[in-house]
Amino acid sequence: MIKGIKIATANCGIKYKNRDDLLLIHFEDEANVAGIFTSSSMPAAPVLWCKKIIAKGTAKALIVNAGNANAFTGHEGEEAVVKTATKVANELGCKAEEVFVSSTGVIGEVLKVNLIKAAIPVMTKNMNDDEASWEKAARSILTTDTKIKLIKKNCKIGDKEISLIGFAKGSGMIAPNMATMLGYIFTDADIASETLHILLKEAAEKSFNAITVDSDQSTNDTLLFFATKTAGNHQITDSHAPELFSFKQAVNELSLALAKMIVIDGEGAKKLIEVEVEGARTKEQAKQVAFAIANSPLVKTAIAGADPNWGRIIMAVGKSCSEASPNKIIVKIGDHVLTKDGTKHPDYVEKAVHEYLKHHEVKISVNLNLGAISFIVWTCDLNEEYIKINKDYRS
Amino acid sequence: MIKGIKIATANCGIKYKNRDDLLLIHFEDEANVAGIFTSSSMPAAPVLWCKKIIAKGTAKALIVNAGNANAFTGHEGEEAVVKTATKVANELGCKAEEVFVSSTGVIGEVLKVNLIKAAIPVMTKNMNDDEASWEKAARSILTTDTKIKLIKKNCKIGDKEISLIGFAKGSGMIAPNMATMLGYIFTDADIASETLHILLKEAAEKSFNAITVDSDQSTNDTLLFFATKTAGNHQITDSHAPELFSFKQAVNELSLALAKMIVIDGEGAKKLIEVEVEGARTKEQAKQVAFAIANSPLVKTAIAGADPNWGRIIMAVGKSCSEASPNKIIVKIGDHVLTKDGTKHPDYVEKAVHEYLKHHEVKISVNLNLGAISFIVWTCDLNEEYIKINKDYRS
Repeated sequence: MIKGIKIATANCGIKYKNRDDLLLIHFEDEANVAGIFTSSSMPAAPVLWCKKIIAKGTAKALIVNAGNANAFTGHEGEEAVVKTATKVANELGCKAEEVFVSSTGVIGEVLKVNLIKAAIPVMTKNMNDDEASWEKAARSILTTDTKIKLIKKNCKIGDKEISLIGFAKGSGMIAPNMATMLGYIFTDADIASETLHILLKEAAEKSFNAITVDSDQSTNDTLLFFATKTAGNHQITDSHAPELFSFKQAVNELSLALAKMIVIDGEGAKKLIEVEVEGARTKEQAKQVAFAIANSPLVKTAIAGADPNWGRIIMAVGKSCSEASPNKIIVKIGDHVLTKDGTKHPDYVEKAVHEYLKHHEVKISVNLNLGAISFIVWTCDLNEEYIKINKDYRS
Repeated sequence: MIKGIKIATANCGIKYKNRDDLLLIHFEDEANVAGIFTSSSMPAAPVLWCKKIIAKGTAKALIVNAGNANAFTGHEGEEAVVKTATKVANELGCKAEEVFVSSTGVIGEVLKVNLIKAAIPVMTKNMNDDEASWEKAARSILTTDTKIKLIKKNCKIGDKEISLIGFAKGSGMIAPNMATMLGYIFTDADIASETLHILLKEAAEKSFNAITVDSDQSTNDTLLFFATKTAGNHQITDSHAPELFSFKQAVNELSLALAKMIVIDGEGAKKLIEVEVEGARTKEQAKQVAFAIANSPLVKTAIAGADPNWGRIIMAVGKSCSEASPNKIIVKIGDHVLTKDGTKHPDYVEKAVHEYLKHHEVKISVNLNLGAISFIVWTCDLNEEYIKINKDYRS
């Protein structure tokens, strides 16, 4: 629980019939806030809104709907956001510019904002701060996700106990940057919004920005970090402050745990695949090769079938890195070394790798032997269910 | 038929049991040759060989095996190519450096070159030049392809009748450059190898380099163009020669027809999707957006399900083009205009687009309204069968 945060969820009827699809969070005192958003040139209306109001660095509320992305909805979409924020502001007694708005779901459909507006007054009268409310919150933002993604962490700043809670939704259209469609992290620590932003960027780089499901990037990706300042620590304004050590670690761990939960709940996914590229000359090179492997439909289907068809890893390196050399590259699946001197390793035993690939967590390592930089990316296998889910997503 | 070309196919037993998987073509007199190859940094041994010997511009033979790519096979793989070429050269009485070699199939498995060597003497004794031989040739190079891809064209250079025959194989790992795994074009025209190369590059740019199945690029992509010089025309050494007009057209049409056959026979594919991006500022921009749409698993699954979920097209534009503007972009599916002023077009009727998407050939058009450049890419839908084929490709 985080002091100063009240939560309500509701079924507002935009798309889903038998589940809550609207979330309202109230920061009773003003919270500090930082955020990261999609780099799409077609950002959804709520993303445009959040990017505008986040400059002030403070928040009084967050409202999220699932089932409609309010993306590519033109002027009407922008108006829907203003109407939503204004309604929340009126009910909670704050300014519209203090209300953060997110949407997730189908792109290009005009949002039935009246359904949201009608639900808000009921929600503001029924706000809670118990554990069940956080679970309801994490559940209400899901679309094709099959599981809620909710993580809690504790740490210390000085002698003060600090709480962190985060939840997210993902599923398809998961590619950096940002890798998650929607993610929210809350803490009771008192940290300046500029400092929060630095910590959030650092954590996202190795978590939400290091995962992929299908190489498609959402128009709605939003990651927000709220600090209610209710823990009683003196405000931190320096991201290098030594007393932030355990807090940073908690933020990083929480972000990575949420990011991995998004991947493993990727549409149709049965396996979590970790792709580590070492020995790159630059971080860009390491990322490019890691994502080429992680996004390759042929690599992902082979792992779905527990088929050690590792030539496809070679293929993905070959297409993504002109500097790579067959004679230098070393490919491993788990602890099994597959290659040596530009060909199959003499000790390679296909059956052993096949057995390893039956596990739910699989690791691929590629050493380019060009430099000293590495990067890790997480992805999932590609199954028939991905196709089924996405052939008729809207029906 | 093309005078001066003799063909043999055989089952050499590398992978397939009940079908021919080895092709030998003999150019009785020296043919001129030009080629384009994969840009992978992990090129297969036969690609390295062809790139080396093509500098001379002449060919006496072509040998192709299916079922094993001879890629990432190190020194042994390179030796296998030399042994193959030498055996062919000894049997046909030419130099090894006049023998072009291609392989397609699994990556990373050492090629059983003795099986190929054993088959060559039998093949050289049983060479034919009838129509059935060309069909056998086109069939022998297939892997997961379900159909042969063979096209014939006639045209004129001056008063001479010119013949063109081309065949190709594709299926998965189809992305530019090159988009086809293996493609061969033959003509009896007398055209200098440098000129052939210019014509081949021009034709490939709008055909083999404008298709994609799964965004994965092969280590073995090879496109070769052979001219036997048996038609009796005087040699052409200028790619701008007016008398080349109908020949160029025939090469372009043949290339595009083969490229489309590769796409529509993409693994699991049921539909041919044409993606045209207009109004780009540069060709690079048009290509980038067109391929982002054509490679998007979410766009491809939606079309598999005849679901007019056009927000996914917006998503793909958004992720691939930072300059794109929601208010400028116009998206069409077939003749149906979907967008206007950054939102859904008022005349959009979902049911009509759903009906259109049931067709076997589907067209997506995007006008970025940024400039005057356009580019067309062809792809296929993404179905459960793609996953099934690639989960257990090697079994």
